[in-house]
Amino acid sequence: MLEKIDQAVLDLLDEVRHRTLNRMQASYDIDLKSSYKDLVTTVDKENDQYISTRLHEIDPGSRVVSEEGFGDEVATLTGHVWIVDPIDGTMNFVMQHANFYIMIALYVDGKPTLGYIMDVIDGTVYHGGKKRGVFENNRRLTSPANNGLKDSLVALNSAMILNNAHNLREVAHQSRGLRMYGAAGMELVYVLTGQLGAYLSYLHPWDLAAGRVLAEAMGLVVKAIDAPSIDVLSSNLVLIATKQAADDVLALVN
Amino acid sequence: MLEKIDQAVLDLLDEVRHRTLNRMQASYDIDLKSSYKDLVTTVDKENDQYISTRLHEIDPGSRVVSEEGFGDEVATLTGHVWIVDPIDGTMNFVMQHANFYIMIALYVDGKPTLGYIMDVIDGTVYHGGKKRGVFENNRRLTSPANNGLKDSLVALNSAMILNNAHNLREVAHQSRGLRMYGAAGMELVYVLTGQLGAYLSYLHPWDLAAGRVLAEAMGLVVKAIDAPSIDVLSSNLVLIATKQAADDVLALVN
Repeated sequence: MLEKIDQAVLDLLDEVRHRTLNRMQASYDIDLKSSYKDLVTTVDKENDQYISTRLHEIDPGSRVVSEEGFGDEVATLTGHVWIVDPIDGTMNFVMQHANFYIMIALYVDGKPTLGYIMDVIDGTVYHGGKKRGVFENNRRLTSPANNGLKDSLVALNSAMILNNAHNLREVAHQSRGLRMYGAAGMELVYVLTGQLGAYLSYLHPWDLAAGRVLAEAMGLVVKAIDAPSIDVLSSNLVLIATKQAADDVLALVN
Repeated sequence: MLEKIDQAVLDLLDEVRHRTLNRMQASYDIDLKSSYKDLVTTVDKENDQYISTRLHEIDPGSRVVSEEGFGDEVATLTGHVWIVDPIDGTMNFVMQHANFYIMIALYVDGKPTLGYIMDVIDGTVYHGGKKRGVFENNRRLTSPANNGLKDSLVALNSAMILNNAHNLREVAHQSRGLRMYGAAGMELVYVLTGQLGAYLSYLHPWDLAAGRVLAEAMGLVVKAIDAPSIDVLSSNLVLIATKQAADDVLALVN
């Protein structure tokens, strides 16, 4: 049953990708959410509504948590819960017309089960789960080398670097270099592929859910910094890293 | 004559791209330069030597300034001077196998004349000059919107953000968002395309030369922060930005 659902979600992503690329050719509204640094567009909302509707059709009886709120009110993790980011990196979408993602995850009775991160522009989909392994399109990925912080590029939350929250500037100093891409999907994919050794940021459920499925399936560390464990339905300061980079970062952060 | 040279350099870039992609399939040496954050590989050196040799053939009597030193000793800007970065973003090349560039520029009697920035992985070349305009492969680029800092994503030197040099953290705070890609070529291209409104970093001659040609040809601001004007053969702290973002940034930096 999960196999059929999995294929249906991959088909859905392909469909939503083409809708999004077409939508970018026409005009769309851009609204401020919390500030001029936090945007939402018509495309986020349309994707949110469309994906939520289709997931209910693909997986009847499931519930959907989605960034723009067209899913369900979800307070418990019983059964099938889908977590959806209809446009991850909305600022990049608006300003760069590139470097934005669509992310979908399935949690079954709270367990990370299936994850999907799609680069909308080039169409690459990172997907899989603990049982099947993790794929870049049809190519199975091997786990990245277990590099430590000193041998890793890292992506760290920009506001936290500017404020030196949690001693993150020292983490940056001890790495091979600091990167900031402005989309959790991109930063998570880069940890999966070894292009980054660690990513640390404050993440909402839809920012983390898919990346967590894939990272854990590859034996990477996914750990809350601000709580004993990750709350799937809430937001956390989260580290995603190789085992060695995680040890090195955890020795520095406060 | 410049037209013939221009086509020969575009052909050379295509050739060096394929050499580089082939070279990445084999093993290569990685050496430290100034620190473990500053690398050089066999590929940088081979590209440097090859490009320098070919430029002397393409443009006899010209002189070549190149990062890895296989060009000439150049102390004056008389005549044709080529400035070459054989691999821009060597750390990305080594750690990410992506997000690295090859950059070539021609200065004639000190005047920015032709510039080339090539994304090695996808093969896109940004090229042109004041007379011909600026192209992304065969497509002529129009100048980006004159957005101010508040409506721009910005890329700022990571070491300077970590140390708050020149008040750069305030620049980041007042922007729409901070990005760090680790390759001047990428950051310069993103300013040309409007995907960033400003880029500020400490740049060596080979980091800046090509981007300066293209940015100035598009009416963008290219300005030294630490000196009255840019020294083509020396290193400077440089801002590349839209006119409005440049005004906004210059009001903040010290």
